[in-house]
Amino acid sequence: MKETQPPAAPPTSPPTRRPGGRSARVRAAVHQAVTELIAELGYGTFAVADVAARAGVADSSVYRRWGTLEALLMDVVVSRLTENSPMPDTGSLDGDLRSFAAKAAEDVTGPDGLALLRTVVTALATGPDGESARDRFLAVRSEQLQGMLERAHARGEDAPDVLEVLDGILAPIYVRVLFGVVPLTPDYIDGLVDRTLTRRAG
Amino acid sequence: MKETQPPAAPPTSPPTRRPGGRSARVRAAVHQAVTELIAELGYGTFAVADVAARAGVADSSVYRRWGTLEALLMDVVVSRLTENSPMPDTGSLDGDLRSFAAKAAEDVTGPDGLALLRTVVTALATGPDGESARDRFLAVRSEQLQGMLERAHARGEDAPDVLEVLDGILAPIYVRVLFGVVPLTPDYIDGLVDRTLTRRAG
Repeated sequence: MKETQPPAAPPTSPPTRRPGGRSARVRAAVHQAVTELIAELGYGTFAVADVAARAGVADSSVYRRWGTLEALLMDVVVSRLTENSPMPDTGSLDGDLRSFAAKAAEDVTGPDGLALLRTVVTALATGPDGESARDRFLAVRSEQLQGMLERAHARGEDAPDVLEVLDGILAPIYVRVLFGVVPLTPDYIDGLVDRTLTRRAG
Repeated sequence: MKETQPPAAPPTSPPTRRPGGRSARVRAAVHQAVTELIAELGYGTFAVADVAARAGVADSSVYRRWGTLEALLMDVVVSRLTENSPMPDTGSLDGDLRSFAAKAAEDVTGPDGLALLRTVVTALATGPDGESARDRFLAVRSEQLQGMLERAHARGEDAPDVLEVLDGILAPIYVRVLFGVVPLTPDYIDGLVDRTLTRRAG
């Protein structure tokens, strides 16, 4: 994708982002470039200029939209970790949780999953960008989980709360990947779900 | 501490480490220097030369003993995370787990706790040094926990296994600190212990 002049607009109009338009194409190209660079080089080894060159856009386009490399990295990571894992709706809490856990494990054990998680952890050290991305990630994840658990409640099932799912399923998966205690076997993932459900029955 | 010539020894004798002797003093000084540099500058911002200068030893002493900066960092982190958290022995599983959880949380929420965890996560990216330190950390932690849980079994208590404690208590604490979801309140920590114990009763 080549950087081209944006369409003429009145000089006083604020920048706008048209869904599906050039703005969306730039976002997709830049996200793809970051994903590739993380997978090939690892986090912390490339700059905005590398991303822009690979995406075929001007450095200034990246800076204007994301502000900093850290903010861009977090935007990509949060998008990957949330958009890639839509909430399952299998008709039972047991099925939903097993599907959710398996997908969450798959997301972070793929070729660049560990790099994604490390990027989150590292970027959080950089202050406001990391914090706002972290809050966004947690907000999106919590809202997705809340919907799934509310469906279970509506069916009359005794569902755990969001915190119990985060602590009981996501946290062990993330820590194991971050500490390199892999692979995450299906038995292991099922065990996490079993224990998260069992403690409700206790 | 000044670097001095080691005592004369037959040229064919292998290097030895006398506990409590010069070797132990060098280790303590180097560990202290790393701990200070992590707290003051953060991980990834200093080199072996900085550590050696602060510890008052020669660069070559550090390289000879630890090989690489990453191996040194992991040695310090593993020592901090395990030596600082001796296993409690309160006479009940409930008391032991609560004390263990509170101490584990304290270890990683102190002034340099987050830096320590980030160092683990980052250093694991560097290959064999990270892996061997990770294995050492897990082995030490598992052995400590195993002893605590075996005491509970010997008292006739229905104790969780090591994996359940790692996943149910340590993982949520570590993820929350790494993701910056703090503070870890006493109520939160107690809730983790409650759930880890409750699921045994289920």
